[in-house]
Amino acid sequence: MYPNWLAQRVQMTPNRLALTFEGKSWTFKQLFDEVMNTAGTIKTAGLEHGARIAILAPSHPQLIITIHACWQLGCEVVLLNERLSDEELAYQIEDAQPTLVLVKENFQGRIGIYKKITLEDLSKMNSSTINIEEEWPLKRTMSIMYTSGTTGSPKGVRQTVLNHTTNATASAFNMGVQTDDVWLCTMPIFHISGLSILIRSVLYGMEVTLYSKFDVVRVVDDLVNGNVTRMSVVSVMLERILRELEERGENVSSRFLTMLVGGGPVPSHYLERAIARGIPILQTYGMTETASQTATLAPEDAARKLGSSGKPLYLSFIRIDKTNKPFEEGEICIRGGHVTPGYIGKYEQTTSQEKGWLYTGDIGYLDDEGYLFVVDRRSDLIISGGENIYPAEVENAILQHPMIREAGVCGVDDEQWGQVPIAFIVSDAEISLESLREFLQTKLAPYKLPRKLHHIKEMPRNASNKLLRRELREWVTSKSNE
Amino acid sequence: MYPNWLAQRVQMTPNRLALTFEGKSWTFKQLFDEVMNTAGTIKTAGLEHGARIAILAPSHPQLIITIHACWQLGCEVVLLNERLSDEELAYQIEDAQPTLVLVKENFQGRIGIYKKITLEDLSKMNSSTINIEEEWPLKRTMSIMYTSGTTGSPKGVRQTVLNHTTNATASAFNMGVQTDDVWLCTMPIFHISGLSILIRSVLYGMEVTLYSKFDVVRVVDDLVNGNVTRMSVVSVMLERILRELEERGENVSSRFLTMLVGGGPVPSHYLERAIARGIPILQTYGMTETASQTATLAPEDAARKLGSSGKPLYLSFIRIDKTNKPFEEGEICIRGGHVTPGYIGKYEQTTSQEKGWLYTGDIGYLDDEGYLFVVDRRSDLIISGGENIYPAEVENAILQHPMIREAGVCGVDDEQWGQVPIAFIVSDAEISLESLREFLQTKLAPYKLPRKLHHIKEMPRNASNKLLRRELREWVTSKSNE
Repeated sequence: MYPNWLAQRVQMTPNRLALTFEGKSWTFKQLFDEVMNTAGTIKTAGLEHGARIAILAPSHPQLIITIHACWQLGCEVVLLNERLSDEELAYQIEDAQPTLVLVKENFQGRIGIYKKITLEDLSKMNSSTINIEEEWPLKRTMSIMYTSGTTGSPKGVRQTVLNHTTNATASAFNMGVQTDDVWLCTMPIFHISGLSILIRSVLYGMEVTLYSKFDVVRVVDDLVNGNVTRMSVVSVMLERILRELEERGENVSSRFLTMLVGGGPVPSHYLERAIARGIPILQTYGMTETASQTATLAPEDAARKLGSSGKPLYLSFIRIDKTNKPFEEGEICIRGGHVTPGYIGKYEQTTSQEKGWLYTGDIGYLDDEGYLFVVDRRSDLIISGGENIYPAEVENAILQHPMIREAGVCGVDDEQWGQVPIAFIVSDAEISLESLREFLQTKLAPYKLPRKLHHIKEMPRNASNKLLRRELREWVTSKSNE
Repeated sequence: MYPNWLAQRVQMTPNRLALTFEGKSWTFKQLFDEVMNTAGTIKTAGLEHGARIAILAPSHPQLIITIHACWQLGCEVVLLNERLSDEELAYQIEDAQPTLVLVKENFQGRIGIYKKITLEDLSKMNSSTINIEEEWPLKRTMSIMYTSGTTGSPKGVRQTVLNHTTNATASAFNMGVQTDDVWLCTMPIFHISGLSILIRSVLYGMEVTLYSKFDVVRVVDDLVNGNVTRMSVVSVMLERILRELEERGENVSSRFLTMLVGGGPVPSHYLERAIARGIPILQTYGMTETASQTATLAPEDAARKLGSSGKPLYLSFIRIDKTNKPFEEGEICIRGGHVTPGYIGKYEQTTSQEKGWLYTGDIGYLDDEGYLFVVDRRSDLIISGGENIYPAEVENAILQHPMIREAGVCGVDDEQWGQVPIAFIVSDAEISLESLREFLQTKLAPYKLPRKLHHIKEMPRNASNKLLRRELREWVTSKSNE
């Protein structure tokens, strides 16, 4: 059992700041009061302890309050990504089978036929009384997030009380906690990178400054003025912050302690520029299945271990499948209390684990000092602006086109986004990039649409006919170097 | 399961400082190497996984290494207090039935007939190879410490992996963790206040500066020069630190973050003097059965909540037995992962718990904001210089005197020690304080010996004949005010 996150926090430090958004602040007591009121309205709407509730709403205090409200009611939440296409959303809702979808009014057209209530309508309901649970079972699923695997079909990953609390604890041991910490959250809350900030907030009693979206001018103001002490970003955001600081000729405040950079490797020249601006970079490797970070590279090792994702966190174990020799590549396996117990819906009976070890699909090695190097992302994962794009998922969508016989997708480097997806097809006739993108736009989120299209005669495949996406990538690289 | 504390730490930050003692320092890697070597010698001495090992040694790196070595071997340690009398030591060893006692050479005469090896002899043995356990079961007993209860007989309290890690985690959430923290340990390691520092050290990757004993001049040097960031003390030590600072006209470094004051309430004028010297005081309430802190009072509440022990830590619940009304006194009950599963030896089958709640024997109340006030310590506990003295234990020893028919012991205020024990007796003849102390000196540790002796005609007792020690105390207080 574990204490009810927010209820326990409000007992301890009711008057400490919990949240700031656009000039308005909430103490933990004020947050809790709004959460309990909202929980009461969700109960009035007919939901009960144990129900599954999907939420589609932008990053806003209302979303935070709604998530906590579901948890106070003892419900699990499916966090939906507003950037997904209607078909993708429909797939996830169909798979998760939530009792209800809570949706921001302007998004309600995207939910289709499923049972929904808008947050606006909810706020007009009377609030029923909720019995506060003092503790929660460690195995209770708190959140569900969809992520695609090797198959290309999105899977709903369960994140339990144990998963989230283990991660927040290991993070505290690793990067420290200060009683005056303020974490700047510009990551989407439907991502584990965003949600995990909210959980650290209640466990540590830490203030969160929330932005509805990444706004580089305001971010840099906060960093320079010492308004925040920690922040999570992906490389593309880091680069924009660096550029803004460089243009202004300013450094971040000495009060700022940690820039946690996830979602793929950080180019080395970013690191040097960050050091010059006084930004302590903590590179991290994690995923939806590990409730965020599982390894991080400390600032003092950044130069010495260029390209590494660092060491496992204190409550995490990492090994390379089928080897225990340094520098030998293999599939990265992860174990610990932060690892998901599994999936919901269609993939409920499947597992990517063996004896407690999560098989990530990522390829990497450990060096002679135990530092992790990620060589190749799972299923040739493309990370574009911090969003995961699974080639198989894009290929499956492309293959629905009646003229296309084979499809291969890979990522290529991009100055702004880190990587962007490009497509290779074998088709019966010439197809333009524009017509392909148009065909795909109802099926895929905009960031997943291929930026380039190449017609080829046949796909590179290995002996067992498996598509060799690495060869596609090499082909593009060699061509661009010509 | 939980990661093997030291083995996991050395994987993460092998080169970070773990320990400093009299000018010599150990990194976690160096500490681990010495620990593994010592573990190997203990194995050579015939001890196996699961064995119970008692240790009697002064605060010194050798003791820390020996404790960790026992843990690496999968053994539980009984930590013996060097200040106890030979009879008290014999009782504890007899009760714990360790396979072996590891003893510092100059203490070996105190161990009597039990199977023992000196640390000096151990260091000459060859070291066997140890299989490192990657993880430990949460229920494994790591340490055993003796503490007396209402009965007056010392009980061996089990402290498990779960107990210690829950406590260290809750402490991190409460007071924070910094990657450059250094904790000054002048508390005995056989006390939970000292041992818990060692556990925080390996979990957080934090350096410990160890003193063999409290030395106010060196302590103040370290505080003023910014060599340390945290420290645990009892009131009597705090007072001496304050006096030294005042005499020097100095303040502690701004790098110093937390003075954790346990072992009884802190007089209010100490608090004011501490503020004047820049010392952030965190008053705490805890006990052997809760693996150290269970409630703490934050600096910002110290003035507003004078005399309070603060709020429960994040992973701890506190309630007052038989009431949920603010300000109503009753027995303090504690629940959480930090609460011992129970005792060993003679008291193995007994419990002071009900439905997960530990009945502390302490009397207190929660105010309308949930702050804990301890009104009366369990079984009229006397806290003298941070050491617990149980009146019943002293009374039992006194009653062995052939001329004494009844005995009552209580604590009175003492400028230096906080409290000291005094005795009341009903006897057949006049007995001098000196002869009583001489009679007791083989039976009790010196700090437990009564400082005063009063002959009375009968003991104050209630209707059910229970000794009313509170009345003894009141009688002394009223007399001294005359």
